[in-house]
Amino acid sequence: MKLSQVGEFELIKQIRSNLRDFQRRVVVGIGDDAALVKIPPQELLLSTTDTLVENVHFNWDYASPFQVGWKVLAINISDIAAMGGKPTYCLISLAMSRDTKKSLVNELYGGLKRIASLYKIDIIGGDLVYSPVFTVTICLLGEVNKDNFILRSGAKKGDLIYVTGDLGASKAGLIYLEGFNAKKKREGAFFIKKHLMPCPKLKEGQQIAKSKLSNAMIDISDGLISDLSHIAEESGVGAVIWEEKIPLNPSVRKLAKELKTSPLNWALYGGEDYELLFTVLKNKKRILEESLCFSPILIGEIVDEKEGLNLIDTSGKKIKLKKRGYDHFKKVD
Amino acid sequence: MKLSQVGEFELIKQIRSNLRDFQRRVVVGIGDDAALVKIPPQELLLSTTDTLVENVHFNWDYASPFQVGWKVLAINISDIAAMGGKPTYCLISLAMSRDTKKSLVNELYGGLKRIASLYKIDIIGGDLVYSPVFTVTICLLGEVNKDNFILRSGAKKGDLIYVTGDLGASKAGLIYLEGFNAKKKREGAFFIKKHLMPCPKLKEGQQIAKSKLSNAMIDISDGLISDLSHIAEESGVGAVIWEEKIPLNPSVRKLAKELKTSPLNWALYGGEDYELLFTVLKNKKRILEESLCFSPILIGEIVDEKEGLNLIDTSGKKIKLKKRGYDHFKKVD
Repeated sequence: MKLSQVGEFELIKQIRSNLRDFQRRVVVGIGDDAALVKIPPQELLLSTTDTLVENVHFNWDYASPFQVGWKVLAINISDIAAMGGKPTYCLISLAMSRDTKKSLVNELYGGLKRIASLYKIDIIGGDLVYSPVFTVTICLLGEVNKDNFILRSGAKKGDLIYVTGDLGASKAGLIYLEGFNAKKKREGAFFIKKHLMPCPKLKEGQQIAKSKLSNAMIDISDGLISDLSHIAEESGVGAVIWEEKIPLNPSVRKLAKELKTSPLNWALYGGEDYELLFTVLKNKKRILEESLCFSPILIGEIVDEKEGLNLIDTSGKKIKLKKRGYDHFKKVD
Repeated sequence: MKLSQVGEFELIKQIRSNLRDFQRRVVVGIGDDAALVKIPPQELLLSTTDTLVENVHFNWDYASPFQVGWKVLAINISDIAAMGGKPTYCLISLAMSRDTKKSLVNELYGGLKRIASLYKIDIIGGDLVYSPVFTVTICLLGEVNKDNFILRSGAKKGDLIYVTGDLGASKAGLIYLEGFNAKKKREGAFFIKKHLMPCPKLKEGQQIAKSKLSNAMIDISDGLISDLSHIAEESGVGAVIWEEKIPLNPSVRKLAKELKTSPLNWALYGGEDYELLFTVLKNKKRILEESLCFSPILIGEIVDEKEGLNLIDTSGKKIKLKKRGYDHFKKVD
């Protein structure tokens, strides 16, 4: 059944009745002019928003509605994770054509609900409008203790640079999805999952914040170098990254070999890995590693601003890094 | 200059530096992974979201970017007003083509900033993405005292139904804009302003909430009857509206006469008036009118659910009202 047959108000009614379990902490949830929730007095309120557009950020040929629903919430959760916070409430704006099938909307909400449930998020409101281009925008709220958040701007010269996990697999997934070796799709499942259904490093972000050892943090959405350059700019510092330390999954190396390309560029510029990138005072290295319930990966060091961003390659040579990565408006090479 | 020449990050930098005055109450505003603000402990948090799409909700032929910026924030403020709350912080997601001129973005932000400043709202974050269709989504946060908010669901049989101002002028504005009498555009300025730059009834909503005399409230966005039917449905009641009491501006009557149509339909079904519709216990009529610093207009009465929605026309005849109004997906007659 198409939305033109269902109608806006009937659709809202159905969505609302399917979301009863996702309204647990609200004073007033979906169905009034605005949602109403209580923020604990010791917490600060976090808010972030991200939009996915059909044929720009995803393609229905390779992404299911479930995956799109999952991903749009995941990328917002990752922003909250990068502050050391806890996501709480989300609002969903859907712009869809009148020909959209109701089952697509249900499946999209299925993905949203699955990840909302895993990350304990209530879905408290939204908007449904007509548009010729399918567009979904999430506004995600969260909370963070007022003594415990981490910004992009606190990195200090001498800090060590860590990431929470492997890089490059999401870009590999995109290459798979865009047609490489369609026959081997099953082998690509690992990459595809990384690209379409990322799992934001929320617990890791919270542990890093709780340790009080990190000076700056960001999530890797645009690409390692692009996001590192955000930290560098906001903090007024430079950075070196050691090529040999960059964590690449063996499957990523294997795929790159098959494609006769270097996986390094995927890790540096691919983006959408949704790992966390953070810095820590050098003399706190041991304490940090003892404070966390996971093993962060040391990949570089914060240096003076005038040195800019550099890579030390496996032969020890220093290579100036260009800030590059995904830009929505500029065409990049 | 086009956005493809400016680039996403340069655009964010410029937007951010132009918004310094709109970051007054934030702990962390635009430029980090998420924004960070403090919510006073006695307040509950309100949140709402609304999207405007090019050629669906507005048309660049008749709406300036300034007006679109104004309107998208205005309609969100109206939702906060309808809860009796105070708007505080907003996030703005813009989806635009690469050919969009930078001046358009600046003008749009001009409209956003103007109304944000009038309603004391900080602009704390957002997202910029590429899309072939211009789409702007606002997520607006607000606060309301925990003893002072008004829902759609509290209307009681016997309540009086009020509106805060004239109805139908927004629909008249849309008719003007869509081509009627283009030569007389200056005469249409009143209507056009009503349609493109609505002024949400925030103070009025707060006064109504503070009086503690109102059982239910909603803003008139879809149309008087459609929004009244939301109150009726949520409260489990019916309603009668008295035709002779419906407030129509003389200019609206005059225009309708010129067009040989009835202005009543504009008022009942036109929508986008952004007045508030609220109900009050019958025996509190006098106290209400003494509690407010404006004159609300009595237009009807809440009745038993089984009676549904009815209009008493000027001859005293009861006419069954069809729930109608704007539906994003259904084509309405």
